[in-house]
Amino acid sequence: MESALSSTVIGTEPDLDDAGLHAALRRDAAAIEATLDRLLPVPDAAERRVWEAMRYAVLNGGKRLRGFLVLRVAALFGAAPAAALRVAAAVEMLHAYSLVHDDLPAMDDDDLRRGKPSCHRAFDEATAILAGDALQTRAFEILAEPATSEDARLRCALVLALARASGAAGMVGGQMADMEGEGRRLSEAEVLHMQALKTGRLLQFSAEAGAILGDADAAQQGAIRVFGRELGAAFQVADDLLDMLATTEELGKSAGKDEAAGKATLVALLGVPEATRRAQGLAVAARQALDMFGPSADVLRALTHYVVSRRN
Amino acid sequence: MESALSSTVIGTEPDLDDAGLHAALRRDAAAIEATLDRLLPVPDAAERRVWEAMRYAVLNGGKRLRGFLVLRVAALFGAAPAAALRVAAAVEMLHAYSLVHDDLPAMDDDDLRRGKPSCHRAFDEATAILAGDALQTRAFEILAEPATSEDARLRCALVLALARASGAAGMVGGQMADMEGEGRRLSEAEVLHMQALKTGRLLQFSAEAGAILGDADAAQQGAIRVFGRELGAAFQVADDLLDMLATTEELGKSAGKDEAAGKATLVALLGVPEATRRAQGLAVAARQALDMFGPSADVLRALTHYVVSRRN
Repeated sequence: MESALSSTVIGTEPDLDDAGLHAALRRDAAAIEATLDRLLPVPDAAERRVWEAMRYAVLNGGKRLRGFLVLRVAALFGAAPAAALRVAAAVEMLHAYSLVHDDLPAMDDDDLRRGKPSCHRAFDEATAILAGDALQTRAFEILAEPATSEDARLRCALVLALARASGAAGMVGGQMADMEGEGRRLSEAEVLHMQALKTGRLLQFSAEAGAILGDADAAQQGAIRVFGRELGAAFQVADDLLDMLATTEELGKSAGKDEAAGKATLVALLGVPEATRRAQGLAVAARQALDMFGPSADVLRALTHYVVSRRN
Repeated sequence: MESALSSTVIGTEPDLDDAGLHAALRRDAAAIEATLDRLLPVPDAAERRVWEAMRYAVLNGGKRLRGFLVLRVAALFGAAPAAALRVAAAVEMLHAYSLVHDDLPAMDDDDLRRGKPSCHRAFDEATAILAGDALQTRAFEILAEPATSEDARLRCALVLALARASGAAGMVGGQMADMEGEGRRLSEAEVLHMQALKTGRLLQFSAEAGAILGDADAAQQGAIRVFGRELGAAFQVADDLLDMLATTEELGKSAGKDEAAGKATLVALLGVPEATRRAQGLAVAARQALDMFGPSADVLRALTHYVVSRRN
């Protein structure tokens, strides 16, 4: 794993084109997948079913955008790749838990996830609830383990930042706000608040985590937080555009769901052309936040371009 | 809060009788309730409903046995009461999250909790799922915050121990094993494994957390872990006896549920007289583990007696 990563050390890709970014994404996703596999061993015990469901939910061949952000920001600050892979895996577990619970019948009631049965369809509702619960726990456990960093101060900072990004003041709060807004016409400010919490905060954490792990200084951490915030906002608008414009086959999950559910999106509020302009503007702001890092941040710039131009 | 605690400093109750223990339990429960209230402020925002559901689930006038364990073991090692109250609140949030999810229709489908509608009945299923999720997150957040300890090493040790106790290798795994065993006749070893995970590990953590926070030495932490393990096992057998012998009114939750659900308990396997003897034997082992602490651990000895003799 480490050698796969070190062959794409940041700084050796000064003018990363689309093909180069996709190759980097694929290599990192494979390394993250291997790390997840290693961090989720199935015990020979009565509770093995919940571990199987956790593995099913997270070992799904995803793009690993959040994990990629962790790895590439961590590399920017010289953090050890093996430690960064653990943090990337923890973020992907946290993300997977949120998807498992969002797909439940009482929530979005979605039978499909990445073209496969969602966790509660492949297993059952009770197992899916427990698997989501335990994926969240495992994420915090991995961050707190000494293998993540010799420095307990950094491990604690990671736990705290992930908790703030993912709890009721972050991702879960955003999901609640989203549900509360269904069937109502939200204002632009309300949509931005909801989306910043629901998807923005975890994407921002992914970038921030790399800077924490690399023990970046305050100015650097501040710049990375702005980058993460703008990138997260750009990602969400792009995602809403995709949901409206793409087909279910392209997405590997049900398309057009937001509109069907009467969900509030910036696209519904502003229309496709203006939402597209917004996404581009947010991407520009994200790239500007990287100015202090020079060419070593080219892979993050390429990622920003990709986030607003992807087709799935 | 601190003054209510310090008025019952361990060591001033050398021969704590039942009345003394109940007074101590009530005082500590009130201090924990006040801490929980302070740590769960409802924001004036679109996501306020999830905070209200979190408060509903945890601010329920419970006995706070787990929090009491944290406080009294922490006091044994001279930890700051304000810090111990934060850890006690975190454990109670973790416990409350597990009850909210256990009560869901897809799990135990229970409409009652402490004589009131369970969280998904008072709110709705989606909100209850999210409130449970966010209570878990908030527990880890509180442990990781600097206010819990100036020493990041101790904060990290608390996060790690709670994660191990409550995840798929602990509490959640126990819930899974319990579900997998429904309708089957489990062996005694299988029941003991399931119960050690499902309720034992979090009770053990509660005691262990006090020792971690008080920076107890390795021998002391070892003794407290044994105390917590035996106490947890005694608690579970006593709980199963109560479920079989008490009425719904006495329990404030549905009685006789285990039998109705075909759930495996030691009582079903061994019968009431032998299960009662087991509970007493575990209580003796728990008290023996406290020998090295002398009279300063009398409140923990009284608690052990209470756990196996309580009526609700």
